[in-house]
Amino acid sequence: MANDFYQERIRRCCRLMETAGLDVMVLTKPANMFYLTGDGRLCAYAMITREGELALGVPSTDLEDVRRLAHFDHLTGFEDEVGMIHSIAHYFERFGIRQGVVGLEYAFLPQPRMGMLTHPHAKPEGVVAKDCTPIMSELRLVKYEGEIEAMKKAAQVAVQGMEAALEAVTYGVTESQVVAAAEYAMRLNGAVDFYRSYVSSGPRTNVAHGLPTLRKLQEGDLVMIDIHPVVDGYSADMCRMACVGTPASEQQAAHDLYVEALEATIAKAGAGVEMTELERTMHGALEAAGHKDHIFGPPIHGIGIEFEESPLPPGHAFFHGEAAPPPLDANVVIAIGNCGLYTGPWGVRVEDTVVVGPTGQSS
Amino acid sequence: MANDFYQERIRRCCRLMETAGLDVMVLTKPANMFYLTGDGRLCAYAMITREGELALGVPSTDLEDVRRLAHFDHLTGFEDEVGMIHSIAHYFERFGIRQGVVGLEYAFLPQPRMGMLTHPHAKPEGVVAKDCTPIMSELRLVKYEGEIEAMKKAAQVAVQGMEAALEAVTYGVTESQVVAAAEYAMRLNGAVDFYRSYVSSGPRTNVAHGLPTLRKLQEGDLVMIDIHPVVDGYSADMCRMACVGTPASEQQAAHDLYVEALEATIAKAGAGVEMTELERTMHGALEAAGHKDHIFGPPIHGIGIEFEESPLPPGHAFFHGEAAPPPLDANVVIAIGNCGLYTGPWGVRVEDTVVVGPTGQSS
Repeated sequence: MANDFYQERIRRCCRLMETAGLDVMVLTKPANMFYLTGDGRLCAYAMITREGELALGVPSTDLEDVRRLAHFDHLTGFEDEVGMIHSIAHYFERFGIRQGVVGLEYAFLPQPRMGMLTHPHAKPEGVVAKDCTPIMSELRLVKYEGEIEAMKKAAQVAVQGMEAALEAVTYGVTESQVVAAAEYAMRLNGAVDFYRSYVSSGPRTNVAHGLPTLRKLQEGDLVMIDIHPVVDGYSADMCRMACVGTPASEQQAAHDLYVEALEATIAKAGAGVEMTELERTMHGALEAAGHKDHIFGPPIHGIGIEFEESPLPPGHAFFHGEAAPPPLDANVVIAIGNCGLYTGPWGVRVEDTVVVGPTGQSS
Repeated sequence: MANDFYQERIRRCCRLMETAGLDVMVLTKPANMFYLTGDGRLCAYAMITREGELALGVPSTDLEDVRRLAHFDHLTGFEDEVGMIHSIAHYFERFGIRQGVVGLEYAFLPQPRMGMLTHPHAKPEGVVAKDCTPIMSELRLVKYEGEIEAMKKAAQVAVQGMEAALEAVTYGVTESQVVAAAEYAMRLNGAVDFYRSYVSSGPRTNVAHGLPTLRKLQEGDLVMIDIHPVVDGYSADMCRMACVGTPASEQQAAHDLYVEALEATIAKAGAGVEMTELERTMHGALEAAGHKDHIFGPPIHGIGIEFEESPLPPGHAFFHGEAAPPPLDANVVIAIGNCGLYTGPWGVRVEDTVVVGPTGQSS
C-alpha cells in the first residue's frame, strides 16, 4: 500500500496516544508493527512518538529486507538482545524523551520481555510504562477498503483450501493429511501462512480446539475443518463440516439448525448492533432447539491481521487486556459461528467471515 | 508412554519444587503440560502439588479427549475463563493450600493471563506467586530414551520434508510453494504440526528469520530451507541450502566452510562440554576464515517438545527468564548451526539436531 495509507494510520495513532496520555510506544508484536509500517517480524521493534516519528530496530541481517518493505523515518540494526535494548535507549535520546509515558503491549509481552523493555538500559528512569493494548486494538478495529480487499482474497483462498480438504476426506486418511491437502492448496493459491488449522473427526469433533492428529477417518465420522489462511497480511476464518458416508439424521438436523442460526446472525450484523445482541441471536436459536448445554463459548470474534482480534467477545475482552467492545461500526470484520454445538459424542461448527455493513454482508 | 514414565517425571518435579520452595504450580503452557501429563492443549491448565497430586482443568468439551490422553489424579471441565478461575480456586481448597508459594510460568504469561491466575478469585490471598520457568526447563533438559526416539522419528520426517523441498526448488516457484511441498510430505509421513517453517531465497537468505513469501525463485538463487516437524510431541531442527542452477564459487566456498565448522562443533558435543566452548568452535571457524562480521547470533539452542528450549544460549538465557546453562549432560538434545553466515547479498545456514553423548552423536 502507498505511504499515504501509513501516514493516515499514524495520524490516527497519534491522536489516540494523546488521548491516552502516551508520549511514545515501543511495539514488538508483529501484527501491530505490520499495521503501522507495512512490515511485522520477529525479534524487532517499532517505536512511534506522539508527534508521529517512527523508528524501527531489526536484526542487522534484515536491514535491506525491511528497507524494501516498511514505511519508517529511522532504521537501525542490532546484533542481539543487548544491542536491541541499547538501540531503544538511543531512540529515546534522539527523540529527546526523558520524562513521560511509554506504551507497551502488556497483552503480548511475558515478564522477561517486559523486563527487557523496561530495563534501565532500555528507557530513561523518568519514563513510566503503561499498557497500549487498547490503543492498538481501537486503531485496527474498523478496516480500510484495502484491508477488506485483502480479507476477501484470504476468504477466496480459504474456499480453495476448503474444497481441497473436502476432497481429501475419505475413509482411512488421517486428520493431519486432510490439513495437508488444505494447506497445500492454500499455499499454491497465495497463502503465506496459517493461523491454527483445525481438523477433527469422529468423537474429536466435540473438542473445542481440534488441532489435527493422526486419527484415521472412520465410516460415519463427522469431520470439522476450520482454516485461517494469511494472504497479503490478512486472515479469513472459515469452518465447514464433512461426513465420511452419510450423516445420522440427528447430525444432519444439528448441522442444518446451526447453519440457520448462523445465517440469522449474519443477517443482523449491521452497524450499530451490539456484539451481545448477535451473541443472543446465535445462542438463542440453538437454545430454543434444546441445545443450551451443547454450546461452548461465544460465537463471535473480530478478525483482521490476526485471526482473533478486536472486537473480542464482551465476556472475554477483560482477560485479553481490553474493555468490552462498543456497538459494531460498519467495516468492522467479524467471524461468526465460533460457539459450536457439542453434543458429547460429536459436535458441529460452521463459521464465516463477515464485513459489518448497513445490512451485514458476508464475504 | 506408560504411566510409570509420568510418575517418574512428577517425582523429579516435586523434588525441584521442594528445592525452589514451591508448594504448587499452575501450568498453562502446552509444552509443560504435555511433559508432565502426556497432553498439552490451549485454554487448559495443569496444577501439581509438591506432594505430586496432579489436577487438570480443560474446556468442558474436551473432557473425554483428555481422559483418553492424559495422566492425572483429578479432572474438571469449565465453560469459560471465569469458570477456569473458579476451578483453580476449588483445587487450592481441595489440596488444603491456603498459604505458601504457587509457581507460574512467567516467561509464557502476558500480563492479562498472569492477572487471571493471580486474581483473588483464583488463588487464596495467603499464596504468593513465583516464577517456575527454571524448574520446568531443568526438568525437561536431559531427555529420556523415549523422547530421543521421538526426536529421531521427527528427524527422519524432517529428512523426508527436506527431500520434498529440494525437489520443489525450481525456477519460478515461490518460497511459499517450496514450504508447501515440505509440509505436505512431512504430514504424509506422520508430522502433526510444525514450528515455523523457514524458506528464503536470493537476497532474502541474508534474513535471520526467513519466513516464506511469494517471492519467485530466480536463476542463481540460493535457497535456505529450515524445518521443524512435530512427531509424537517432539520436534527436530534441520536446515539445508539449495541453489537454482549453479552456485557462485564464493557461495559454494562459504557453504563448505559452514559445513566444516558445523561438523567440527558436532564432534565436540559430548557430556561435560560448556555451551560457550561449542559456540567458540563454531564462531571461531567462521571468524578464522574472515567472516567475523557475517555471523548473526548464537549457533546453538536446545530442542525437544519445543523447537527452541533449554539449554538456551548463555547470552540469551537471561532474556527468556533463565540462568546460563551448566555444562552439557549426556542426552541433552541441541540444534547446532543456527548462527548463519550472512554476507549481505546472500547468506548460508546449515543446521542439525544432535544428541549430546560421550562422544557427540548426530541424529
